[in-house]
Amino acid sequence: MESERETLQVWKERVEQELDRVVAFWVEHSHDQEHGGFFTCLGHDGKVFDDLKYVWLQARQVWMYCRLYRHFQRFHQSQLLDSAKAGGEFLLRCARVAPPGKKCAFVLTRDGRPGKVQRTIFSECFYTMAMNELWRVTGEVRYQNEAVGMMDEIVHWVREDPSGLGQPQLSGAPAAEPMAVPMMLLHLVQQLSEDNAELAGKYAELEDWCAHRILQHVQRDGQVVLENVSVDGKELPGCLGRHQNPGHALEAGWFLLRYASRKEDPKLRAHIIDKFLLLPFHSGWDEEYGGLFYFKDADGLCPTQFRDSERGEWFGYLNREGKVALTIKGGPFKGCFHVPRCLAMCEKMLGSLLSRVA
Amino acid sequence: MESERETLQVWKERVEQELDRVVAFWVEHSHDQEHGGFFTCLGHDGKVFDDLKYVWLQARQVWMYCRLYRHFQRFHQSQLLDSAKAGGEFLLRCARVAPPGKKCAFVLTRDGRPGKVQRTIFSECFYTMAMNELWRVTGEVRYQNEAVGMMDEIVHWVREDPSGLGQPQLSGAPAAEPMAVPMMLLHLVQQLSEDNAELAGKYAELEDWCAHRILQHVQRDGQVVLENVSVDGKELPGCLGRHQNPGHALEAGWFLLRYASRKEDPKLRAHIIDKFLLLPFHSGWDEEYGGLFYFKDADGLCPTQFRDSERGEWFGYLNREGKVALTIKGGPFKGCFHVPRCLAMCEKMLGSLLSRVA
Repeated sequence: MESERETLQVWKERVEQELDRVVAFWVEHSHDQEHGGFFTCLGHDGKVFDDLKYVWLQARQVWMYCRLYRHFQRFHQSQLLDSAKAGGEFLLRCARVAPPGKKCAFVLTRDGRPGKVQRTIFSECFYTMAMNELWRVTGEVRYQNEAVGMMDEIVHWVREDPSGLGQPQLSGAPAAEPMAVPMMLLHLVQQLSEDNAELAGKYAELEDWCAHRILQHVQRDGQVVLENVSVDGKELPGCLGRHQNPGHALEAGWFLLRYASRKEDPKLRAHIIDKFLLLPFHSGWDEEYGGLFYFKDADGLCPTQFRDSERGEWFGYLNREGKVALTIKGGPFKGCFHVPRCLAMCEKMLGSLLSRVA
Repeated sequence: MESERETLQVWKERVEQELDRVVAFWVEHSHDQEHGGFFTCLGHDGKVFDDLKYVWLQARQVWMYCRLYRHFQRFHQSQLLDSAKAGGEFLLRCARVAPPGKKCAFVLTRDGRPGKVQRTIFSECFYTMAMNELWRVTGEVRYQNEAVGMMDEIVHWVREDPSGLGQPQLSGAPAAEPMAVPMMLLHLVQQLSEDNAELAGKYAELEDWCAHRILQHVQRDGQVVLENVSVDGKELPGCLGRHQNPGHALEAGWFLLRYASRKEDPKLRAHIIDKFLLLPFHSGWDEEYGGLFYFKDADGLCPTQFRDSERGEWFGYLNREGKVALTIKGGPFKGCFHVPRCLAMCEKMLGSLLSRVA
């Protein structure tokens, strides 16, 4: 028992230090003091290589800072809170392309003018996460109104009428469901329902629907998790149907596991561990060079995320041999989110395990 | 002189054989006998890995077959002509999303239903190339009417009103001109004007405009060719502005050189050789591993196109070390076009040089 405790203690300290280094990197290099919000296109040394503001990453950084502020004593700093609020105000002011319409831009100029709009729900989903967290740390109800109003619109787009997203309806477009959609919605339900019985009740049916839709992505007699299936849970033809994303499956497993725990359903829990955690971890692992494949179908694959021991934060893009392919620390799809989010969770879990073996 | 002749002769034979092998690959594996058109998502052994039909590649293959049929005695075969016509009829039947509107799909299902529409001009440009060539080989005026009608619409979108493309006008969208646009239009003018004084006259002013706009992409005192500049020829901020594509610059140089030769302008010709051929060739070359970089700005670059000595055709995607990254021979962006087009031109040029030194 003592040795188990020591192992956990050693790991907890390592994770703590790593989280400190990662957060320090973003605090030092990413804050836009002039316009609010964050620079997220950063080189390995933190140098800004583009000042565009991708809405996914703006909102995720707001969310991350608020979570750190709420959950970690050492991050309960006014600097983090002020930066999160400045990011939130930037989003409130600029993210929506044509208010009172809810559609958000995908990317903004540094001063907040829209540069591109995606015809998907994801900018809006991350916006909702940010606003809900800002309400939790500040108590200001305008943030929560923004979060719930946006959530209503997202659910309308997904389950009732997608025409507001602006995608043309084409006869040859595959009736595919990307796993990202129910997975994202499940995460939002869990975000909004935390310690909130009223919203937990409002979204209970939606939560079951999300879990059901995600579970449909387990295909071929339970041998694979496919990223895209038909809405009635059948494998699709072509590359689209064969596409696997092991990291995504693992992330979906995390949200599902939370769902199964809340439902107190041990059979479902075992199924999720088997299909969404063990299966993608083993089948997605590169036996030759190590690491998880980013995508899996045929070839040209690359593992993702590696630590930079010199300057903090992690590289996001390696080639298959594990060499750094892109030295950037942030870019259009990587910001202050995945690495610190993971480290923060690990630290919490290790702390919790330690308290049990104490 | 004899030795120069021998060298040319050896190379001409090598290129001839290579072109034969490449064309044989596409004839053997890509024809869809049931619906017309071509499978272009092919593995290294020619196996179809997806049956989606990308309009760019459908049209380019029609164009390629017609050119081979017109210009090479050994390809003057009814099989090539019939396949080109079947591809052309497939495009006439299915490419336009909402006739009489001109907008074409980006990708179609195997039986021709639209799956995705890009908000750019390129599907329509390749459609125009295909129809013009079909008219040249068959003499059927309905093909030429289709080509010229589409060309009028493309010019309208580029120079008068882009709203028909469906792109939202956003205040933060960069007023950038991708070099691809004037380059593509210059190529279309040259395609339509070949041996056609009437159209050459109609498009003379457009041709000058295209050349002028392409030349504006030479920036920083003639030290770089940038893929995106402002419409008035200034460098743009951010990644977008710094983006270089050496292969694209070389291709633009080819079209411009044809323009300068027709204009009989030796000074312009020297400028083009210097800035669009020598400069991107030297600055785009990877000194460490050899090969041209696909893109150039910072990192994560890969050279493109390599020969498969076993099964014909070339691999399209290598990693920086020159290893094959994707074993596919065709996919959404590579089909029966770049490799045979290049080989066909080389063979012709070598033949022409040989005839001069004979």
